[in-house]
Amino acid sequence: MKLYGYWRSSASFRVRLALYLKKLPFDYQPVHLVKDGGEQHTPEYKKLNPASLVPTFVDDDVTLNQSLAIIEYLDERYAQRPLLPSDPVDRAKARALAYDLACELQPITNLRVLQYLTGTLNCSDEQRNDWIHHWVHTAFTAFEQRLTETAGEYCYGDSVTLADICLLPQVYNAQRFKVPLDDYPTLTAVNDRLQQLQAVQQARPENQPDAQ
Amino acid sequence: MKLYGYWRSSASFRVRLALYLKKLPFDYQPVHLVKDGGEQHTPEYKKLNPASLVPTFVDDDVTLNQSLAIIEYLDERYAQRPLLPSDPVDRAKARALAYDLACELQPITNLRVLQYLTGTLNCSDEQRNDWIHHWVHTAFTAFEQRLTETAGEYCYGDSVTLADICLLPQVYNAQRFKVPLDDYPTLTAVNDRLQQLQAVQQARPENQPDAQ
Repeated sequence: MKLYGYWRSSASFRVRLALYLKKLPFDYQPVHLVKDGGEQHTPEYKKLNPASLVPTFVDDDVTLNQSLAIIEYLDERYAQRPLLPSDPVDRAKARALAYDLACELQPITNLRVLQYLTGTLNCSDEQRNDWIHHWVHTAFTAFEQRLTETAGEYCYGDSVTLADICLLPQVYNAQRFKVPLDDYPTLTAVNDRLQQLQAVQQARPENQPDAQ
Repeated sequence: MKLYGYWRSSASFRVRLALYLKKLPFDYQPVHLVKDGGEQHTPEYKKLNPASLVPTFVDDDVTLNQSLAIIEYLDERYAQRPLLPSDPVDRAKARALAYDLACELQPITNLRVLQYLTGTLNCSDEQRNDWIHHWVHTAFTAFEQRLTETAGEYCYGDSVTLADICLLPQVYNAQRFKVPLDDYPTLTAVNDRLQQLQAVQQARPENQPDAQ
């Protein structure tokens, strides 16, 4: 298995988490999103991923994009250490938590959107940071309230699920942009427990070979 | 079953499509997102959905949010007319197409983001429209290229899948904001075929009781 990713990309971080949690060995192929205009835009990479996004995942003759689709594939194909509960209602609730972050927060604060704000719309650094803080607080306020109903040791009960895989990169980003997290005690407690897992340490951005 | 939604919401449209495609009867409860500051912000609705987003879906004692989680639940729970292929690789590829739109396009162009652009960032109507056109073209360019490899009658082969459910609302929105679609012949041909299905007509925004 081969994962094309970037150390700081949330979506790459998610797939690394799934692979390490499931103890699936893989080769990591860095794709630098910023250097020389971004390696994701080269013709070679666009053959793998026409959207010029990371990650791309290759398992023998199967090439997949979209982190959540890759993780669902891994979970269906490799049964060890499931990342979703077995009951349909529990699965739906764990998935909904994941999408609360993967669909409502990450896309609005990712690199290319921030580049459009500062480039095309001439936003100041302060306006860009306000944008990030606004969407983090909007998403985390609702997420904290949901967690008071769903969380055990982790986001959904006492097993690590897709919801935790989506939470970790968003907390990493929030901390990177200095968003205060004092109003989210359940969320930060779950994040702290997740940090104690070896798989999470292995997957963290700063522990990747392309980290700067 | 009860669906709380709004006629023009992409995510509500997706769940209506899944319900009509699977021929599952449901009550539709409109939540007006604009009138009087938005019914999604009322204390009653926030009890159902603390994120103040539509849709919310209720099946007996189960309350679910997030359209994609609801649709996966419906597909797991009600076997008729499956919305994902059975093979794990095919499922992953159909899901990836769905997320290409649900995670890369819809969140960036939804109502609350547009309101932030024109409200907080004081963008002009022209800048707001440029924003919409830019992200539609970015997403549709990559999606068109993917479809040339995956499409049959519909986005992934010859059965209607989650990918089509995510495509329909994005084409509706693109047309609403007058984005030219001439460069996407495969995408528009799939969309045209989908329009011929009774379930799609039943689910379309303008055919809902709260349409204006």
